[in-house]
Amino acid sequence: MIDRNAIAAASVRIAGYVRHTPVLRITGADLGLQDRGSVPVALKLELLQHAGSFKPRGAFNRLLSTKISAAGVIAASGGNHGAAVAYAARCLELRAEIFVPTTTPAAKVARIASYGARVIQQGKTYAEALLACRQRQAETGALDIHAYDHVDVLAGQGTAGQEFERDAPDLTHVLIATGGGGLIGGIAAWYAGSAAVVSVEPEGCPTLHDALCAGHPVDAPVGGVAADSLGARRVGTTMFPIAARFVAQSVLVPDAAILTTQRLLWERFRLIAEPGGATATAALLSGRFQPPNGARVGILICGANTDPASIAGIG
Amino acid sequence: MIDRNAIAAASVRIAGYVRHTPVLRITGADLGLQDRGSVPVALKLELLQHAGSFKPRGAFNRLLSTKISAAGVIAASGGNHGAAVAYAARCLELRAEIFVPTTTPAAKVARIASYGARVIQQGKTYAEALLACRQRQAETGALDIHAYDHVDVLAGQGTAGQEFERDAPDLTHVLIATGGGGLIGGIAAWYAGSAAVVSVEPEGCPTLHDALCAGHPVDAPVGGVAADSLGARRVGTTMFPIAARFVAQSVLVPDAAILTTQRLLWERFRLIAEPGGATATAALLSGRFQPPNGARVGILICGANTDPASIAGIG
Repeated sequence: MIDRNAIAAASVRIAGYVRHTPVLRITGADLGLQDRGSVPVALKLELLQHAGSFKPRGAFNRLLSTKISAAGVIAASGGNHGAAVAYAARCLELRAEIFVPTTTPAAKVARIASYGARVIQQGKTYAEALLACRQRQAETGALDIHAYDHVDVLAGQGTAGQEFERDAPDLTHVLIATGGGGLIGGIAAWYAGSAAVVSVEPEGCPTLHDALCAGHPVDAPVGGVAADSLGARRVGTTMFPIAARFVAQSVLVPDAAILTTQRLLWERFRLIAEPGGATATAALLSGRFQPPNGARVGILICGANTDPASIAGIG
Repeated sequence: MIDRNAIAAASVRIAGYVRHTPVLRITGADLGLQDRGSVPVALKLELLQHAGSFKPRGAFNRLLSTKISAAGVIAASGGNHGAAVAYAARCLELRAEIFVPTTTPAAKVARIASYGARVIQQGKTYAEALLACRQRQAETGALDIHAYDHVDVLAGQGTAGQEFERDAPDLTHVLIATGGGGLIGGIAAWYAGSAAVVSVEPEGCPTLHDALCAGHPVDAPVGGVAADSLGARRVGTTMFPIAARFVAQSVLVPDAAILTTQRLLWERFRLIAEPGGATATAALLSGRFQPPNGARVGILICGANTDPASIAGIG
């Protein structure tokens, strides 16, 4: 299990390569909450990170922790991890191949290619793209950078928690969108119970929710509007013990709440969040997460790799 | 002339109504600068302000400094000031009428109306809308909230400078887009020479540039891609003595650089800036502002009220 020391070490390792993303302080009223208008909310704008999501944190920490051969790196991804690995590989002058499923939005495919990586679209789901990636890896010997199930990736993502605590030390609850669990695993390991880390998933991708119910990682459905970023079939075995110990609550939100939240983030904050990036905020808007009296809520907005025109009512 | 005390007082007055917008630290390399890749740059994300621009700072300070009758308030605007006055009027439960020229983008008209103000589109330019606004004001007796030429508005906009200095105290240069001069007037009054405040205008709207050349405010052309936010015909008489004393440099940028910068802000930072919001950054990208050795550059990104689909190559 990773701990604060591993995350602090990762932070030093990746400092020259990732952005310290800023925090915007707002209130429940800004989010349109009727009955919780006075609740203080801190938005960590991780969507402003290089490559449009938090993923470079884990990718850089993994790449900088290992000796890498001329065969370079290879990764499977719904899109954001692929963009991050491609971005990091370009910075470190490494060859990169990225496997994405056919459901990955064109904007993400173009983004990955723009960093000079070879992109292969294969399979209908992340799990199928991962299988194709592994077959190719066996041929080339490239280093496989898993999107979430690795201690170095977890420690890298945990640096977002370290920054969040430094910039907003008063939080009682921290809301994080969960896919394969790399981000929430790292962040829960950082807070280690000092704030209540809340997992938020779309009803269509209840991966951590189902795992916590079962007591171990299990296969879960993959569907809905945020599947391209949160649609892992099951959470990682590396993160699960951390989540079992340090994730205080797991909530599910309907797709409609995610779409409403995307629109609100644009209307009221001029932020373009992808569906997965809007999911954590949707927990507050939909009432699926109810802040108790005295709560000070942090929300990490984790990604922006979408076509703004896809957000209903924008413009 | 306003001073730091007036701005500090404005800051206290408006604190419950405006957002303290965050700062993102980047480098020249992030902006694609070849020869100045290592220059530290701090972006103040004022585009995340209520109503999508810095304008509520001045509007709230003006409204909270004056007793207002049941006739409410009235304003002429290219769009952003109107949205800010409408937003502030709604918060303070005041009636509001906003005059905008026919060139104001539909997104801004809709935004103003969404706050419950009555919107009147009249005249081809801001100057013509202002004339219509004044005629109407004589009928209704509503309080006229000028978009920039008033000490309370200047002091309110200056609070953005106060925040910027607090969050990034090491800056040597601060780049500000200039229209009628309310923002740069307030910010130059705040810094008062302690950092070099640089005015950036589109070549099509050289309002402050021409005034500084003439030694007093003069009429200037109004045109180009940022005219809806920066297209005042002449700078305010209230701000001019501040600019003459404390604006260190005035640069002009071509429209093409503004459009390139809008695209870059999306591609590399996931920020949607309107043309006027991208103008200050365009000075660095285009080389029209050349940071000297040892410079630490601040840029205020002042507005985001645009249709993202209008940004070339987005998606």
